[in-house]
Amino acid sequence: MTEHSYEKAKSALLFIDPYNDFLSEAGKLWPRVKDVAIEVGLLENLKAVTCAVRRNGIQIFMVPHRRWEPGDYETWHHRSPTQIAIMKRHSFARGEWGGEWHPDFAPRDGDIIIKEHWGASGFANTDLDMQLKQHGITHVILVGLLANTCVETTGRYAQELGYHVTLIRDATAAFSKELMHAAHELNGPTYAHAILTTDELIAGLPSP
Amino acid sequence: MTEHSYEKAKSALLFIDPYNDFLSEAGKLWPRVKDVAIEVGLLENLKAVTCAVRRNGIQIFMVPHRRWEPGDYETWHHRSPTQIAIMKRHSFARGEWGGEWHPDFAPRDGDIIIKEHWGASGFANTDLDMQLKQHGITHVILVGLLANTCVETTGRYAQELGYHVTLIRDATAAFSKELMHAAHELNGPTYAHAILTTDELIAGLPSP
Amino acid sequence: MTEHSYEKAKSALLFIDPYNDFLSEAGKLWPRVKDVAIEVGLLENLKAVTCAVRRNGIQIFMVPHRRWEPGDYETWHHRSPTQIAIMKRHSFARGEWGGEWHPDFAPRDGDIIIKEHWGASGFANTDLDMQLKQHGITHVILVGLLANTCVETTGRYAQELGYHVTLIRDATAAFSKELMHAAHELNGPTYAHAILTTDELIAGLPSP
Amino acid sequence: MTEHSYEKAKSALLFIDPYNDFLSEAGKLWPRVKDVAIEVGLLENLKAVTCAVRRNGIQIFMVPHRRWEPGDYETWHHRSPTQIAIMKRHSFARGEWGGEWHPDFAPRDGDIIIKEHWGASGFANTDLDMQLKQHGITHVILVGLLANTCVETTGRYAQELGYHVTLIRDATAAFSKELMHAAHELNGPTYAHAILTTDELIAGLPSP
Repeated sequence: MTEHSYEKAKSALLFIDPYNDFLSEAGKLWPRVKDVAIEVGLLENLKAVTCAVRRNGIQIFMVPHRRWEPGDYETWHHRSPTQIAIMKRHSFARGEWGGEWHPDFAPRDGDIIIKEHWGASGFANTDLDMQLKQHGITHVILVGLLANTCVETTGRYAQELGYHVTLIRDATAAFSKELMHAAHELNGPTYAHAILTTDELIAGLPSP
Repeated sequence: MTEHSYEKAKSALLFIDPYNDFLSEAGKLWPRVKDVAIEVGLLENLKAVTCAVRRNGIQIFMVPHRRWEPGDYETWHHRSPTQIAIMKRHSFARGEWGGEWHPDFAPRDGDIIIKEHWGASGFANTDLDMQLKQHGITHVILVGLLANTCVETTGRYAQELGYHVTLIRDATAAFSKELMHAAHELNGPTYAHAILTTDELIAGLPSP
Repeated sequence: MTEHSYEKAKSALLFIDPYNDFLSEAGKLWPRVKDVAIEVGLLENLKAVTCAVRRNGIQIFMVPHRRWEPGDYETWHHRSPTQIAIMKRHSFARGEWGGEWHPDFAPRDGDIIIKEHWGASGFANTDLDMQLKQHGITHVILVGLLANTCVETTGRYAQELGYHVTLIRDATAAFSKELMHAAHELNGPTYAHAILTTDELIAGLPSP
Repeated sequence: MTEHSYEKAKSALLFIDPYNDFLSEAGKLWPRVKDVAIEVGLLENLKAVTCAVRRNGIQIFMVPHRRWEPGDYETWHHRSPTQIAIMKRHSFARGEWGGEWHPDFAPRDGDIIIKEHWGASGFANTDLDMQLKQHGITHVILVGLLANTCVETTGRYAQELGYHVTLIRDATAAFSKELMHAAHELNGPTYAHAILTTDELIAGLPSP
């Protein structure tokens, strides 16, 4: 149930990091998200959400992580633990299959592709905030990976920046159930305006 | 143990929300943080940290939450759950004792007082980033309240903005042990460059 | 004439730095803006604009410069020429008459007062962008002082951030006619969506 | 003459928009900048500056404008006059010669390429601020095109963000001498910490 409304002209789906490395069976990070992903029905729900928002004419913004390239982060003074891990495993490597969009979630005509983020926030060091404004968006619905890192930091930023923030608890995943619990039961309720299931979101969308 | 170094000219202590409402026995939020605060030795550790950084000549930046005033948030389109709670309980009310600095942690001559933040990030909608640059700071050490909200969002922002981020696990508190665990064992390790105890930080400071 | 429309719910007047030091006869900077101010009819036009937008229900945001305080900028590594000048002449000193609102333009109930800006942009290091979003604003109309510094930098920022930007050429002033020319004939036309006179703006406002 | 010092580890050259369309004889915009460019000795000075900073080990950041692609700006609510002009003339078109680096100024190994900017500020909606911090930069030296648009807006932003800003008056150009005058005699002196000639800059660099 939700009392939130998602006007077509003002709402956007932010789809965070839908790469093969996260979402496909042979992806580098799939083994780490697999258990949670299967339990929540991640792939089915991502399909249901994107299908529903497309049908309703809600704009999709792809919010992709930096695709790793040789040299990345090497000259930086302060690499984060996540960035150090990326330097080792070459997550989402540019030009490789792992850094390609999962085929079910590749952008389509009319989707807007935001600049790649170097850290965990889709807003930091990108054009996401400006692009949302240039399209009249006031409400953002966050799906994708990972619930406690890129999705959460993007959500925390969105709230600070003045947006209405909706998390979809079963259209995301994390490396453990405990991390999902932290994202949706502990931290989300401090900053997010709505935390819904896929079904609740779809039921709350306006008729196309 | 830490391999991080904190040069006096480049390091700063960010002291987040040291209000009576959080830290004093009669404070509105003290009952909610009390158990964790006592267990970690919050007040003693905050005193030890501030004393040590002052002795070492490390700059202190006070990073205060918006002191509630009548009318706050009332005309906003998208209030966060935390902001709705503040509207009800009038946390850190301006002109009241609860919104005054805890007497042990009031700013002293030479401390820099950053603009009040409306949300959870000390960077968002304030002059914190600019002031850090105008003082040559590259390393930020975060203490204060709450571990999983203002401290964590400020830390996540700091990392995105390019700073080296240190959390002090026993110089902060939260509404439950589970929230502390989420902040320091689950989420902190994804973005923070160091997560230390008060003793570890002090041992790692340069000699005055 | 304008083809731009200013919907009440989406438009805001940003009134920049309406201090006695700028606008009153005994103000520290009045001698420097006086010639241009009289020529364009600054005070009459500011009254006409604010009266018209209030009548139309358009939200006013006060966008004030930092009121000078002892110690300001002294510890900063990189003071701008304008900031060095402020340190000398104590422009808009806090607690003094020069740093008070010009009596004709003091904020009224319902006006929103943005945090003071340290430099020339009303957006930088303040809550202006977030407050605009929290009130649904997409169109900003800029009036106040100075045309080529605070008004222009605020306007350049607004454009980058995704807002529709309107300059009012006779509801601002500068230290010389040449600076006004630079602001409205040379630079404004590169970033501003509309550059109007006070009369054109008022004629284009929706009926109350 | 300058009293400013440019420490190798803290200084960076920001090279703005060195595209064929601006700098090569067959470029779309060369006819508009040609007169000023020849008068100031733009190409020689850009070569001298880049050669000198490379010799001194000062980091170069390429700060490129968005290369026009079909569809750009079409769905935006508020296109700026400059963006409307770009839609018409396809400035810096991706995949075309005009959008390639001028051959004398193409990035070399070790140069850092910042994300493309949609407007006039190299900071807005890009990773420039974060990348500068991740490389310890406090002083930025701005060269490239145009003096009163991308260079000036980038400079105004840099000042607001807390950097030391140097303009090089003969390593840039504009569509007219009047615009150059506005950039360097009228507006630059309000926000820039130094406005030098190429020779003055080079004389002030530390020995390699």
